[in-house]
Amino acid sequence: MRADIVQRYVALMRQQGFDAIIAISPENFAHVAGFMVPSQRLMRWRHAAAVVTASGRAALLAVDMEQSTVRHKAPEAEVRVWAEFAHNAMATLARLLADLGLSAGRIGTEFDYLPAGDLARLAEALPGARFEPAEAFLARLRQLKSPEEIALLRRLSMISDQAITDAFAAVRTDSTEMDIAGAMTRRAYELGANRFDLMIVATGPRSVFPNVGPTDRRLEKKDVCRVEVFTIIDGYHAGVCRTAVVEEAPPHAERIWAHLVECKYMILDMIKPGASTKRIYNAFLAKMKELDLPPISFVGHGIGLHLHEDPYLGHAAAIGGAEDVALEAGMVLGIEPLVYETGYGFGLQNKDMVLVTKTGSELLSSYANTDKLLVVK
Amino acid sequence: MRADIVQRYVALMRQQGFDAIIAISPENFAHVAGFMVPSQRLMRWRHAAAVVTASGRAALLAVDMEQSTVRHKAPEAEVRVWAEFAHNAMATLARLLADLGLSAGRIGTEFDYLPAGDLARLAEALPGARFEPAEAFLARLRQLKSPEEIALLRRLSMISDQAITDAFAAVRTDSTEMDIAGAMTRRAYELGANRFDLMIVATGPRSVFPNVGPTDRRLEKKDVCRVEVFTIIDGYHAGVCRTAVVEEAPPHAERIWAHLVECKYMILDMIKPGASTKRIYNAFLAKMKELDLPPISFVGHGIGLHLHEDPYLGHAAAIGGAEDVALEAGMVLGIEPLVYETGYGFGLQNKDMVLVTKTGSELLSSYANTDKLLVVK
Repeated sequence: MRADIVQRYVALMRQQGFDAIIAISPENFAHVAGFMVPSQRLMRWRHAAAVVTASGRAALLAVDMEQSTVRHKAPEAEVRVWAEFAHNAMATLARLLADLGLSAGRIGTEFDYLPAGDLARLAEALPGARFEPAEAFLARLRQLKSPEEIALLRRLSMISDQAITDAFAAVRTDSTEMDIAGAMTRRAYELGANRFDLMIVATGPRSVFPNVGPTDRRLEKKDVCRVEVFTIIDGYHAGVCRTAVVEEAPPHAERIWAHLVECKYMILDMIKPGASTKRIYNAFLAKMKELDLPPISFVGHGIGLHLHEDPYLGHAAAIGGAEDVALEAGMVLGIEPLVYETGYGFGLQNKDMVLVTKTGSELLSSYANTDKLLVVK
Repeated sequence: MRADIVQRYVALMRQQGFDAIIAISPENFAHVAGFMVPSQRLMRWRHAAAVVTASGRAALLAVDMEQSTVRHKAPEAEVRVWAEFAHNAMATLARLLADLGLSAGRIGTEFDYLPAGDLARLAEALPGARFEPAEAFLARLRQLKSPEEIALLRRLSMISDQAITDAFAAVRTDSTEMDIAGAMTRRAYELGANRFDLMIVATGPRSVFPNVGPTDRRLEKKDVCRVEVFTIIDGYHAGVCRTAVVEEAPPHAERIWAHLVECKYMILDMIKPGASTKRIYNAFLAKMKELDLPPISFVGHGIGLHLHEDPYLGHAAAIGGAEDVALEAGMVLGIEPLVYETGYGFGLQNKDMVLVTKTGSELLSSYANTDKLLVVK
C-alpha cells in the first residue's frame, strides 16, 4: 500500500464525509496499492479492490489465482481472497466491509466502473450501507503525480518517442505497416516497457482514421505515416504520436505540419500552474480556425495510470470532468495537435507528453525533433 | 451488421420475451456488428452499442470520434452518434430506444459490463422501459462459432504458436525476457496479428507467477521459460502457452511435463459433442491427483471475442456460467494443463486452442510439437 496515497484518501474522505472508499478499477487499485493485478483489466469479473477507511485502515480484495502476486507485492497488507469459481467477489467484499465496521457506513466507489449487477449484489449483501459515487474524488487524487510517478512517466515518454523514431529508421518504401509495428514494439521492450496499448499504425489513405492498428499495407513514396503508441510500465502510460512521410512529403503536408507545430509551441508556452484548461483549448481552436484547419474536441488530456485522465484541454463536462480547470504543478498531460481530415487524403498528428512544472512546462517526450515531418528514407 | 447473428438474436429474444437487446461490451458489439470500435475497450465512457429489436431491426450507437470508422465498416447501418464532450451517451441511447418504439419495452443488456452509473442514467432517461440482465443470453450466442470465425481462430492459433516457437529459436542463454518478448511480438505482427494481449514471459524463478510480463532478467542454463500470448485479429483471440528450458531441463521438469502431456491427450480424447465439461474437468483433477500434482480451478475455457468465455472446464457457476455444459460442435476452447507451483521453484504450462468438431476435437495450435519440453539452445 502507498502510505502517502492512503493519507490523501483519508484527508479527502474527512472533507467529503465518506466512511470508506472502495477503489475497484485497475487504475485506482494500482494507485493506492502500488501495483497492478495482471488479469484485472482483462476479465471484468476478476475483481480486485482496495478499501481505505476514514480512520486510515486499508485492506485488499483479490481473486484466488492472483493471490500469490498480491501477497508478493504487498506482503504487509491485509488481503481477503475470493475463489473465482466458488464465491462471489461482492459477497467477500461485503464481509470485508462489515469486518471493517462499515455495515452502516457511507461508502464511496466507482459508479463509472463497477458493473450494475455487481453494485446491486454488493448493496444487497450489505443492506445498511450507503454506496455513493466517488469517481470524481478518485480522479482528482490521481491528477497530481508524485516525484516517483513523474520520474517513471519521464522515462516512459522517452521510450515511446524513441521506439517510434527507431521504427521509422528501420523501414523503407515497400515495407509494410506490420514491419513498422514489429520494429517499434521490439524496440519498446528493449528499452524497458513491460506492455503497450493502443498502437496506431495508419499510413497512406489509412492515416485519416483515428484509432487503427497495422495491416499488411506496403509503404509507398509520399505516404503519410501516423504512428502512436502508449508504452506501459507498472500500469503507467506514456502516449506519443509521430508522423513521418515516405521519402518526401505529399503536397500541402509540410504547410499543415508547420501549423500543427505552431499549435504545439503555443500550448507549451501557455501551460503553467494556474493556467485555465479552457483558455488553452480556446486559444488552440482559434489558432486552428486562423490556419483554416478543422476543430477537434480536445487537444490534451491528463495521463498516468489510465491513458485518458482528467483534466482535459477540451470540453470535458459531459464525462464528469470539470469544464475549466486551473493547471497545477505535478500534472502530466498528453498534448496532441492533429488533423485527421486535411481534405488531401491524409491525416497528421503530433502527440507529446508534457509535465506542468512550478514555473511552466517540460516536454517529456523530447527524443525526436518534430519541428519538421520525420522521413522514412 | 451480421445478418446471421441478428437472426439468432431475434430467435432467442422471442423465446425469452425480450423486446430488444443492447449489446454494449466490446465483444458483444463486435459479435453482432462484425467489427470492433477501436477505443471502446480502452475508455469505458466511450460507449458503442448495437441495439437489436425482436422484430429484427438493428441500429448502432457510436461516439463522435469513432464515427468515421463505424460508418466505414457499416455503411448500410443506422448509426446514432453522441458527442464525447457535449452529450451523454446514455441520453442518446435512450432517444434511439424511444425511436425504435421501446419506451415501454423489456430490454436486455449487459449488467456484468454496463457501469452502475450508466445504467441508472439510462433507466432515468427512459422511465417506462424495463432493463434486465441479458449477459447469459449473449454469452450463449457467442459460444457456437461460424465457419468464418473458426477459420480465423485456426489462423490465429497458428500465429500464436509459431510466434512463441520462433521466439524461443531466436534467443540464447544470457538473452533477456525482453528479447523473448521483442522477438515474439515482431513475429506475431509479421504473421498477420493486428494486436495481442496478456503476454506472459515468466522465466526461471518467475515461472511460478501466473500472469507476469517480461523483465530484463537474463536467461540462465536450466531455466524454465513459460511464455503465453493471445494474438488478436478483428477482436478475436487465440491464446497459446509454451514452455521451454534453457539448454537442458532442471531436475523433475521432464517428468512433470510428461504428466501434463498425458493430461492434454486425455482431454483431447474426451472432447466431442455431448461431452460434459464437468466430467472432463473431474477426470483432469483425478489425473492430477494420481500424478501428485496440485489441482487448478479450471483447465479450459471458451475463447473468441473475449479471452475467457463460457463454457469453462472447471467450476464456472459463480461467474454466471453453467456448472455443467454439454459441448457442441463449433465451440472453441483454450485448454491449459499447468502447474505453477511444482515445489521445485518453477512452473510449467501448455495451452492449446481446440475446436469441438462433429466427431471429436481438432487441435488448432499444432505448429509446435510439445510432447517434449521445447529447448532454448
